Amino acid sequence: MIKKADILQSVTFQNRFGGQGEIAVKQLLSGDEFCGKGRLFAHNVISPGSSIGLHQHQGDFETYYILKGEGIADDNGVKTPIKAGDVLYTKNGESHSLENTGSENLELIALVLFA
Amino acid sequence: MIKKADILQSVTFQNRFGGQGEIAVKQLLSGDEFCGKGRLFAHNVISPGSSIGLHQHQGDFETYYILKGEGIADDNGVKTPIKAGDVLYTKNGESHSLENTGSENLELIALVLFA
Repeated sequence: MIKKADILQSVTFQNRFGGQGEIAVKQLLSGDEFCGKGRLFAHNVISPGSSIGLHQHQGDFETYYILKGEGIADDNGVKTPIKAGDVLYTKNGESHSLENTGSENLELIALVLFA
Repeated sequence: MIKKADILQSVTFQNRFGGQGEIAVKQLLSGDEFCGKGRLFAHNVISPGSSIGLHQHQGDFETYYILKGEGIADDNGVKTPIKAGDVLYTKNGESHSLENTGSENLELIALVLFA
C-alpha cells in the first residue's frame, strides 16, 4: 500500500511533555499497521526555540533519528548537542528531552516500540 | 544513549534482491536494541539507476518512508511513482521493489518489524 505525501497529515502539539513552543508530528503508520509491535513511527518537526519536554518511557522504548537541524538532547540527565545523523536511543524506564537550539527547524524520525 | 553520526557506518550492497547497481544501508539500531520486535531500522541511499529488487516479506513487514529523490515502487505488481514524503507499506506475505529513476540519490527510512 502506498500513502502519498499529501494524505499524511501533521498534528501540532503545544508544550509537548511540558516543553516549549510547538512540535508537528506526522504519523507514518496507523495503529493497526504496527501489528502490536509499537505505537509511533513519525516525522517530527520542532520549531526553533521549541522543545519536547523531559519524559520517561514506561512499557516502551523510543529512538530519535535526527534528519535536519541541531539541538540539545537530555539523555537521562546528561545534556549533549545533537545534529543530523545522530541517534538518541531511550530504553524502557529511561527519560529524554530534545530542544531545538538552532535557527532552522529540527526534524527527526521518532519510533516507539513496545518493550 | 546517543550514537553520534560519525560512528554509524553504512554497508553497501550490490544488486540487492536482484536489483541494479548499489544501495547503502545505515542501520540505526543493533539487533538487541529492537527488544525482539524487529530487525531493521535504517537510512538507505539508492544511487541513480540503482534499485532494490522485488522481494516478498515472510514473517515480517516493512515500511519505506521516502526522504529525498524520486523513483518507481512496485507494490505487489502495481508500479507507482514515489517521491519525498511518500510511504510504502508492505505487509507480511506481500512483495515490493524500489527503483531510483531520478538524477539524484533516492533516500529512505526502512523499518522491518516482525509480524
